[in-house]
Amino acid sequence: MSITVVGSVAYDSIETPAGRRERCLGGAATYFALAASFFCDVRVIAVVGDDFGPQQEAVFHARNIDIRGIEHAPGKSFFWEGSYLDNLNEARTHNTELNVFATFEPKIPDAYRDSEFLFLANIDPVLQKRVRDSMPGVKLVAGDTMNYWIKDHRAALEQVLKGLDILLINDTEARMIAGSNNLLRAARAVMALGPRFLVVKHGEYGATLFHGASLQHEATERTFRAPAMLLEEVVDPTGAGDSFAGGFFGYLAAQQELTPGTFRRAMFYGSVMGSFACERFGTERLQQLSRAEIDARFQAFRELTHLD
Amino acid sequence: MSITVVGSVAYDSIETPAGRRERCLGGAATYFALAASFFCDVRVIAVVGDDFGPQQEAVFHARNIDIRGIEHAPGKSFFWEGSYLDNLNEARTHNTELNVFATFEPKIPDAYRDSEFLFLANIDPVLQKRVRDSMPGVKLVAGDTMNYWIKDHRAALEQVLKGLDILLINDTEARMIAGSNNLLRAARAVMALGPRFLVVKHGEYGATLFHGASLQHEATERTFRAPAMLLEEVVDPTGAGDSFAGGFFGYLAAQQELTPGTFRRAMFYGSVMGSFACERFGTERLQQLSRAEIDARFQAFRELTHLD
Repeated sequence: MSITVVGSVAYDSIETPAGRRERCLGGAATYFALAASFFCDVRVIAVVGDDFGPQQEAVFHARNIDIRGIEHAPGKSFFWEGSYLDNLNEARTHNTELNVFATFEPKIPDAYRDSEFLFLANIDPVLQKRVRDSMPGVKLVAGDTMNYWIKDHRAALEQVLKGLDILLINDTEARMIAGSNNLLRAARAVMALGPRFLVVKHGEYGATLFHGASLQHEATERTFRAPAMLLEEVVDPTGAGDSFAGGFFGYLAAQQELTPGTFRRAMFYGSVMGSFACERFGTERLQQLSRAEIDARFQAFRELTHLD
Repeated sequence: MSITVVGSVAYDSIETPAGRRERCLGGAATYFALAASFFCDVRVIAVVGDDFGPQQEAVFHARNIDIRGIEHAPGKSFFWEGSYLDNLNEARTHNTELNVFATFEPKIPDAYRDSEFLFLANIDPVLQKRVRDSMPGVKLVAGDTMNYWIKDHRAALEQVLKGLDILLINDTEARMIAGSNNLLRAARAVMALGPRFLVVKHGEYGATLFHGASLQHEATERTFRAPAMLLEEVVDPTGAGDSFAGGFFGYLAAQQELTPGTFRRAMFYGSVMGSFACERFGTERLQQLSRAEIDARFQAFRELTHLD
């Protein structure tokens, strides 16, 4: 099974209480792809500039990620600069330079067309919709969005939501889409717009899965909560949400059958990958991770929440 | 087994998005006692004024709670007025009248002296220490505190923490005591001050139990996270933390043996009782609750977090 992901491949300059890094390789599609690559084949659609070369390509190749869909355009790659000095749960953006991303027109390589799974990372909903419509044969589509699109591009976003099986967003975004502070009511309102499954990420408090009916089984349990890891030190939370999405969707893509139990374990793998992402700056930890470490942490998560 | 609880029995005027109630029966000891009474015998030490009569006593008697330790003093009972209009997770206090509580000198009835369990609800740490020292034979002591005592009565509070087996506080309080924003580090710093067990309540996101070594078994798992219920409507969060403490400590007091598994189930019962408390104004829901409803919700919590 393989996932095609469309989203940003970028450079980030990041400051946290643990220090500062200039121009780390980043972007939602990068974090997602690295995290998902531990579970299934991953193919990336993005655009980069002249500053993206063999050294950056090697990061993807080391994890067997297909980057034939990363287009090279003249100019500079997307660049983001932010800090988490006051609050590790929320980035303060100091600078965003869209660069080659400003005129991004996603192109889907023919070799990607047999992907059964599609992930629409956080980009302009108009582009998300275009990619989704270009891949009508996919089995399961998941996506992300952010406050900017929710506030100012509502109509385009609603078109995307109609075509999503799974939406992954955080508390603030769920409440903003729904216009309700109550999480359960907000979840219902969001799901009424399209997604059959909704994952709401609570940062250090874990994440909740809401589902109406499961894909192959009628679900009796309609919500599931996965914990987050209590980390000694959160070095850099950048990309934790995208890594969660990669672990969650990557695990799903690797399963024979999608059952309520599969979705529960996927939530745990999402939390596991999100927790690893925070342990070092940028994608450093995901680049050095092993499947054995992932499975050991999965067991630690089970210990953290199981009654007996 | 029985628990003696010392704390406030009070009247609360409460405004929430769901409405307003004048002078509900409240106070930390009231919520705690009602919640714990579903699991074990409970005895209350508090002071009330002339405005506390047979109607209020009947609330305790209906749950077989021993109130011989509630002293009647001339004047009015403790009164609190607050609202949750902006934020259901944090009360805004409009008025606090200590009244008879200003000169409260806890007196322990002889009939209470064989209690094996003692709960020191949120009152002046000087009084908490006095009660704790008057009951040297208790098997397990738990307690609560709040930002006011942490900020301005630190020395007295530290004397209390030395004598506690279990401290139950919220995130903000844990971080304030420890001076660290990292929850794991904050928990360690708080436990270094005395309590062998620490319960940090995260409001709608549940609660985490930290423990060093268990009482009768060496624990391999040192943290445990219980979820909170996703409620259709939080009518009134007043007393949710005290109800959590009542469910948690009441369940522990009813067990033959204190094992890591017992503590995990106690965390679930704490969350269960906290969730019920929020469903109606004041203590209304706790007054009308049945053990069958409690056990059904316990199972729902298990469904909410269990992988398989």
